[in-house]
Amino acid sequence: MTKVAIYGATGYTGFELIRLLLSHPKAKISALSSEQYSDLPYGQAFPPFRGMLSKAAFGKMEQIRSVDVDAVFLALPHTVSASVAAEILPRGLRVVDLSADFRFRSIPLYEAVYGVRHVSPELGERAVYGLPEIYRDALRKTPLAAVPGCFPTAVILALYPLLKEGLIEAKGIVADCKTGVSGGGRGPSLGFHYPEVEAGVRPYGLPRHRHNPEMDQELSLAAGRKVTVTFVPHLLPMVRGILATCYATASGKVGERDVETAYRKHYGKEPFVRIVNDAGGIYRLPEPKILAGTNLCDVGFALDEHANRVVAVAALDNLMKGAAGSAVQSMNLMSGYPETMGLDFMGLHPI
Amino acid sequence: MTKVAIYGATGYTGFELIRLLLSHPKAKISALSSEQYSDLPYGQAFPPFRGMLSKAAFGKMEQIRSVDVDAVFLALPHTVSASVAAEILPRGLRVVDLSADFRFRSIPLYEAVYGVRHVSPELGERAVYGLPEIYRDALRKTPLAAVPGCFPTAVILALYPLLKEGLIEAKGIVADCKTGVSGGGRGPSLGFHYPEVEAGVRPYGLPRHRHNPEMDQELSLAAGRKVTVTFVPHLLPMVRGILATCYATASGKVGERDVETAYRKHYGKEPFVRIVNDAGGIYRLPEPKILAGTNLCDVGFALDEHANRVVAVAALDNLMKGAAGSAVQSMNLMSGYPETMGLDFMGLHPI
Amino acid sequence: MTKVAIYGATGYTGFELIRLLLSHPKAKISALSSEQYSDLPYGQAFPPFRGMLSKAAFGKMEQIRSVDVDAVFLALPHTVSASVAAEILPRGLRVVDLSADFRFRSIPLYEAVYGVRHVSPELGERAVYGLPEIYRDALRKTPLAAVPGCFPTAVILALYPLLKEGLIEAKGIVADCKTGVSGGGRGPSLGFHYPEVEAGVRPYGLPRHRHNPEMDQELSLAAGRKVTVTFVPHLLPMVRGILATCYATASGKVGERDVETAYRKHYGKEPFVRIVNDAGGIYRLPEPKILAGTNLCDVGFALDEHANRVVAVAALDNLMKGAAGSAVQSMNLMSGYPETMGLDFMGLHPI
Amino acid sequence: MTKVAIYGATGYTGFELIRLLLSHPKAKISALSSEQYSDLPYGQAFPPFRGMLSKAAFGKMEQIRSVDVDAVFLALPHTVSASVAAEILPRGLRVVDLSADFRFRSIPLYEAVYGVRHVSPELGERAVYGLPEIYRDALRKTPLAAVPGCFPTAVILALYPLLKEGLIEAKGIVADCKTGVSGGGRGPSLGFHYPEVEAGVRPYGLPRHRHNPEMDQELSLAAGRKVTVTFVPHLLPMVRGILATCYATASGKVGERDVETAYRKHYGKEPFVRIVNDAGGIYRLPEPKILAGTNLCDVGFALDEHANRVVAVAALDNLMKGAAGSAVQSMNLMSGYPETMGLDFMGLHPI
Repeated sequence: MTKVAIYGATGYTGFELIRLLLSHPKAKISALSSEQYSDLPYGQAFPPFRGMLSKAAFGKMEQIRSVDVDAVFLALPHTVSASVAAEILPRGLRVVDLSADFRFRSIPLYEAVYGVRHVSPELGERAVYGLPEIYRDALRKTPLAAVPGCFPTAVILALYPLLKEGLIEAKGIVADCKTGVSGGGRGPSLGFHYPEVEAGVRPYGLPRHRHNPEMDQELSLAAGRKVTVTFVPHLLPMVRGILATCYATASGKVGERDVETAYRKHYGKEPFVRIVNDAGGIYRLPEPKILAGTNLCDVGFALDEHANRVVAVAALDNLMKGAAGSAVQSMNLMSGYPETMGLDFMGLHPI
Repeated sequence: MTKVAIYGATGYTGFELIRLLLSHPKAKISALSSEQYSDLPYGQAFPPFRGMLSKAAFGKMEQIRSVDVDAVFLALPHTVSASVAAEILPRGLRVVDLSADFRFRSIPLYEAVYGVRHVSPELGERAVYGLPEIYRDALRKTPLAAVPGCFPTAVILALYPLLKEGLIEAKGIVADCKTGVSGGGRGPSLGFHYPEVEAGVRPYGLPRHRHNPEMDQELSLAAGRKVTVTFVPHLLPMVRGILATCYATASGKVGERDVETAYRKHYGKEPFVRIVNDAGGIYRLPEPKILAGTNLCDVGFALDEHANRVVAVAALDNLMKGAAGSAVQSMNLMSGYPETMGLDFMGLHPI
Repeated sequence: MTKVAIYGATGYTGFELIRLLLSHPKAKISALSSEQYSDLPYGQAFPPFRGMLSKAAFGKMEQIRSVDVDAVFLALPHTVSASVAAEILPRGLRVVDLSADFRFRSIPLYEAVYGVRHVSPELGERAVYGLPEIYRDALRKTPLAAVPGCFPTAVILALYPLLKEGLIEAKGIVADCKTGVSGGGRGPSLGFHYPEVEAGVRPYGLPRHRHNPEMDQELSLAAGRKVTVTFVPHLLPMVRGILATCYATASGKVGERDVETAYRKHYGKEPFVRIVNDAGGIYRLPEPKILAGTNLCDVGFALDEHANRVVAVAALDNLMKGAAGSAVQSMNLMSGYPETMGLDFMGLHPI
Repeated sequence: MTKVAIYGATGYTGFELIRLLLSHPKAKISALSSEQYSDLPYGQAFPPFRGMLSKAAFGKMEQIRSVDVDAVFLALPHTVSASVAAEILPRGLRVVDLSADFRFRSIPLYEAVYGVRHVSPELGERAVYGLPEIYRDALRKTPLAAVPGCFPTAVILALYPLLKEGLIEAKGIVADCKTGVSGGGRGPSLGFHYPEVEAGVRPYGLPRHRHNPEMDQELSLAAGRKVTVTFVPHLLPMVRGILATCYATASGKVGERDVETAYRKHYGKEPFVRIVNDAGGIYRLPEPKILAGTNLCDVGFALDEHANRVVAVAALDNLMKGAAGSAVQSMNLMSGYPETMGLDFMGLHPI
């Protein structure tokens, strides 16, 4: 049994971690932190979990630090995460960080993208990128996992096999992403005010969203040469879900079977990646709608023969496979538990 | 282990039953029927359950009738349900019916309300109304449960303790209900066409919706005298959820503590009814939003002292506690399983 | 031509006033105030009106006070409104106030309900309640109109003819109201954060919302005796629109024709009230969906003969007939213009 | 004054044409056809226009053919449109066709794309593509306008100046489009059933949607060489609006000023195209949300310098600039009226 703490427990990722860990057979939530809501009773701080949390310690970070735990999930702002990790890791705990602090292989790149100084650059080298589909073995051995950004997870899973197998050109890749509002967090602001979101679709983060260098880093490693994705996220009037529609030039003559084979080769045994390409019905390609609450990433594709292009599509729940789900999946690997433990929820439909 | 069949498996209630039974420790889905979609491959007929159902027989009703099962869920239109039940029950199976066919204690009333002849009136007497909070003991002994309508479940759970304890007048009760669109089923029609539902709110079923006599029946039994609710349902731009806002005249001087006590008396030990009345936060009274996918019914109340009125509020997920969840809960009781088995999903937030 | 100023122009009511006045044949927007956004260029402060407003002065209240205008719309918080009105009225301007400051006939009641001291109680007596359907003649003669609250407008228009004609009992009236989120204004907060509103329905303001005494005041005047409505508003996942579903006990034997006649008597010639009661189709009773942007209030009804009750339904756009539309309608009357001037937009469908 | 008929008046485009023409100073609606709803009374066939249409003849096509009119709008399925046009044009009427029948310069291409035989290929040559921003002069002289598809309008307006000015490569263009559900029409089907659309995002029409050859045709003309766009539309949970996010490789070194200049050159005097590129606020780039009901197409852009790419964005209301608005704009030109007549609605915000 692993005693866990969740730092930043009253945000949406925190809520999702709580949901997963409450029903995880090998985890016990021992401590929850919140800087903003720690004065509230449990029921008001965690309305979805009324009556389920009273056994966990709850307070500001410094109030729960002394609680004895084996693993810690950090759902904190960047830089805060790194400083907490730096304090905790020496105690021998497993740390799963959901911020950007340990995602970059290059500290200077991190510092340029986020416009801050990295507070514990030395830890960066021990961190493993928390995408089990690529870094499974390393995750089994590390005490520090850096859960990828939600957009990079979708875009990388869509394109990784195609670049790895040389089916698409490294140059000229476009990733047009659509996301639900929960990706923006639980803090109210005009941009997420209901009347300003409903019935609209908003491109944002241009010209270069912070998740862009992160996906470039991993896709370049897959391709074996520099990949510079043109990435544009769009905010949609829905709460959960990411759809990544990726466009790439085919490397010469590429057929459906080639693409299918590449996906099967890399994902055929993956517990959380499905290849979706139905000939009929209304859910032919991946869609986040039927994945809410699951840890699945569905991938699919179509060929545009007129333009010799591959359209690769990935869908996931940004709070799950895009955050808390991958975090628990990583923690399972780091703890020697079955990778899928506590992640078997199959979704609600319709919702 | 109970082998189950779901008749009418490709509707929304059918989907929800599949979801629940796939992860139910004591159930095994052996057969699924669909009159409309039985020609499709599993993946297209059941997109939310891709790759999870291939071991169950799938076909039209007559194609799956010979499959060996112990229990049957009927998610069928009324009259069809009754005739299937009449055929199945003599074989010694447990039957949980989700139609209106066995909800009424008076066959003539059923026939008047639904404008049809009852096809197996003799079964009506053996059926037990599938609301465990009131009929738990009877459900343990019956082979035939009649799952209540979604609106009656919410309204009855809101008002039952108040009428039972004599805190409100039997006369003059109003139940203003709000429902998500999934309650209307999976069949497309102009009234459920996306552009006609989004951004609107539609009162319907006036002057007397078919669920009205059903709630009157049960509330009259609770009150010990005739209750005639004025019930108006409203269609909302959301998929799941029912909120019942019920208004009743207080019987003399009634205080908050009286109402609280009545609710605690009847629901204090109920596994799926919570009393919600928070002093702060944004979720003070019951709301269906945080109940999606759960089998919970939250109840709460406020007193309008200026008009000497009690406002009782109940929230639930119409596909769960309002249909499939209550069905599985009833099946658990009928089978001698723990009542909460397979019903422990705690919801997703936000969604 | 009337030169107008809008105080509080960057809120949703302000936006709606701008939209109406920009195309009003007899109005010219001369000044716009905003305490919060006055530093922004026009395009960012008023994104829906890019390129249309550069001729109006724009600044904080004190910056635009010297601009020469004939009429002023106050879309300000209560108490601020009253103090601005007190300063402006002596200059001979027409003032249309959209706050609660001048809606109450009893200053002590206002002070109790809003928990503040009234800053200019002497003006209260000159103010006319800005509901032309009842106070048309008085509005023609006053320099100060108090636009009703959005909920009171809907509830009063639904019930006024029935009380006036003695068709319903004064006692035991219930008004269950559903509103879009824009009624909560443009200021972000957790309660209006997209992920907390979408897919939900929230009862709020219990036990006695501030609009309750306002509707009681006007309905008591109509009935000729004390009316105490039990009023519960609900927040819906939509932006605009109010639906009021009102329940009242019929006074003896009341038939459909009686109710229809009462409505026709009072509203038969009203330009902005329609009686809606279709025998078929999906829009049989009033619904706010098809009224967005219009100044219409649709009213309709059904009789519940089992409980001897009248269900009266009213729908309107909360930002229009519930605020800015009624404000312009009042201004038209106060200015001697045709009452419907600038208010002829017929809505968008679907939206 | 122009007497007009609308064929196919009970679809969403028909509704929008009615709305526009009812308030058009030079148009009078004389006849309305509907094959499906002609048995209904006006109020039920046209709920948004209760009480406003009784002076127009209403019936099936053959029932209204004899009504005397000067201009006809065809909101009909393809092939039906062409045969009606062939019958009407010889009578000297102006015809504005909203189907695909006359959009293609190549009849064989049309026939291949739509899988039908063209019923009046000879008319194709007289038809002018109804995009006034490009074909203004020709529209002034033709009796037959072919209103573009909604997606092509957005994509063409986004890219036309860039191709015309040689700022982007003809090869490798991607158009990722997002649309509201109203684009799918008023006919209910599972794919547009509320519970299957809400909270989701669906890529569809792959690998080659029918609007793809249409945009290729016009963009190739602009570029002076073959353009083959990779176009993927996505269905969003909203009713109106299209956002086209277009990605193209810059032709050598291209700066913001170059793009801005190209747009200004082509659109600087356009009444319905705005260039939107704000430095602050939440509506920095074009968004359809604030364009509902307007005839505007907002265009904007960003440069991705890392990949030497131009991201061009266009937003419009698919029922307006994407259909009925462009149709009326074309009719104005064909009739010698001011181009903007009847098209001055400035939108509702928020909605």
